Amino acid sequence: MGPHPAVAAIRLAVRRVLHDILTELNTTAGVPAATAGGRTPERPPSPLVLVACSGGADSMALASALAFEAPRLGIRAGGVTVDHGLQNGSDLRAEEVVLRLRELGLDPVEATAVSVGRAGGPEAAARDARYAALDAAAARHGAAAVLLGHTRDDQAETVLLGLARGSGIRSLSGMAAVSGADGRYRRPFLQVDRQTARKACMVQSLPVWDDPHNADPAYTRSRLRHEGLPALEKALGKGVVEALARTAQLSRDDADALDTWARQAEEGVRDATGVLECAKLYALPPAVRRRILRRAAIEAGAPAGALFARHIEEVDRLITGWRGQGAINLPGKVVAQRQGGRLVIRQG
Amino acid sequence: MGPHPAVAAIRLAVRRVLHDILTELNTTAGVPAATAGGRTPERPPSPLVLVACSGGADSMALASALAFEAPRLGIRAGGVTVDHGLQNGSDLRAEEVVLRLRELGLDPVEATAVSVGRAGGPEAAARDARYAALDAAAARHGAAAVLLGHTRDDQAETVLLGLARGSGIRSLSGMAAVSGADGRYRRPFLQVDRQTARKACMVQSLPVWDDPHNADPAYTRSRLRHEGLPALEKALGKGVVEALARTAQLSRDDADALDTWARQAEEGVRDATGVLECAKLYALPPAVRRRILRRAAIEAGAPAGALFARHIEEVDRLITGWRGQGAINLPGKVVAQRQGGRLVIRQG
Repeated sequence: MGPHPAVAAIRLAVRRVLHDILTELNTTAGVPAATAGGRTPERPPSPLVLVACSGGADSMALASALAFEAPRLGIRAGGVTVDHGLQNGSDLRAEEVVLRLRELGLDPVEATAVSVGRAGGPEAAARDARYAALDAAAARHGAAAVLLGHTRDDQAETVLLGLARGSGIRSLSGMAAVSGADGRYRRPFLQVDRQTARKACMVQSLPVWDDPHNADPAYTRSRLRHEGLPALEKALGKGVVEALARTAQLSRDDADALDTWARQAEEGVRDATGVLECAKLYALPPAVRRRILRRAAIEAGAPAGALFARHIEEVDRLITGWRGQGAINLPGKVVAQRQGGRLVIRQG
Repeated sequence: MGPHPAVAAIRLAVRRVLHDILTELNTTAGVPAATAGGRTPERPPSPLVLVACSGGADSMALASALAFEAPRLGIRAGGVTVDHGLQNGSDLRAEEVVLRLRELGLDPVEATAVSVGRAGGPEAAARDARYAALDAAAARHGAAAVLLGHTRDDQAETVLLGLARGSGIRSLSGMAAVSGADGRYRRPFLQVDRQTARKACMVQSLPVWDDPHNADPAYTRSRLRHEGLPALEKALGKGVVEALARTAQLSRDDADALDTWARQAEEGVRDATGVLECAKLYALPPAVRRRILRRAAIEAGAPAGALFARHIEEVDRLITGWRGQGAINLPGKVVAQRQGGRLVIRQG
């Protein structure tokens, strides 16, 4: 008898990602990837893959699947838990997670304490501190990758958070399956739902820890999880989470393609001195033109996070609705101005 | 003292659209558009613009703004109300709407009765019947355009309905400001919120009728309006409706640009006999390739409405993940199959 379907699902998800990592390591090393029936090519002893584990159901399930799959692929499996120091006793909990990861057979395993600042709000500050600690741990151990336990439900919530910004399809594209420097971070569970991860822990008798933050209505994501998404499911039907996750993937591909187009088109709309020409911009599709304008504003010094769709729309009207408007002020003291047939965007 | 801000807002929205219509009529007639200080070019007596009016707040506000603005631009303003025959007394209500539109000074005004079928569910069937009746009325009266009262709130709901399909950014692009044959339908209120329309009726002492369907939880849109969106606003903040409406516009432009790209790229990926070549498809960005595959499936006879993202993903794997898969069955008895280096999509 095989494993429980939930366990089979999480293992398959992790196996696929580990296989990708091996393939890429071999490719990077200049050796062709192992193919069916081929010899395993020679490579340095054994790559290390870390799992980032909070002790919650998603990342405990991930750790268990990594512990099972990694040795079968000649990979060493380790774990890191980040102590954010935001709750009393978080250090003891981190120690407990370390023990559980060791019990799963992971090695090396470590707890790393961070100090969470305040920049960008509590959720962003905690996230920044966490990734800095994971980066450091990966470097310290020479890890080939760090696995993150984000599920399809997390992805759906991220898409809705992006939707609330109203800033276009890039913000609808959620979390990437591969991200970070050199594609260090991997999210094997983006197609796995939270319920499956929890079930996999249960049937494997893995104790899990429920972060009280996840239920705290002070957090936007928590409100979304416990009120917003359930209400949407009630109105629209049970497939909403899946639909949101698929929207993320489709939007990401679309945004990538349009960014590519904008980068290529940009060369053709500048004059000999590099200044944007209005007539050439006008001839482009609006979606491409606005991406070029956005890139130009950022290049001139506007902070990407402060540059909203309405800013770009206003700059775009210098091209499409020219009636002698004055200079337009953008974040970061950047000014956009039409001069003759040219669009000048620079820090003023 | 000028009009109440709500009345000013609805009039401005209608004035802009009427101006667009006049500009296009002049352009179509081969006469340059009237410009500031220029002579009004000669044209047939006076174009007619109809408003589609249910008697609800949105379309009554629209009718009042059309009645005010049209004469100032040399346009005749008329109205149509559609009796769907779905409720007892709907014919009497239609007569009442006709009277109210006449009181606003619209002429011609008519009620037109339709019989609603069942195809595609109650909402789709009512919509199909309504547009057929509006098309007929526009043709009968030789109207240049038909104004529809959809507000920014309607647009937000439409985006969420599209999101629930999970079929990509085209379904996130909501309702177009201009649609139908020859751009006949115009939606001046896509940037105006429902609250403003209602306020404008109130301060103009226009009686409005609240369609009980709008509050009936049997309808998806009604559930979304009364439960889904408010819960989302509670979780994400008050700007959600605006963010959704902006997402619609940005998604529409992006989808248009990518469709253009796919149309252009399509010519380059077919061999001399018109069959798709896998290697050339493989070299395209996924977003463009999948659009070409979707177009090819529809061209081969797959009904667009039954063709989901997961179908296209499966066909795409014939290109990107080729490991000898068999033929893939698509809706409408269409079959996609890799043969040598070619991708053959045809009705089987």
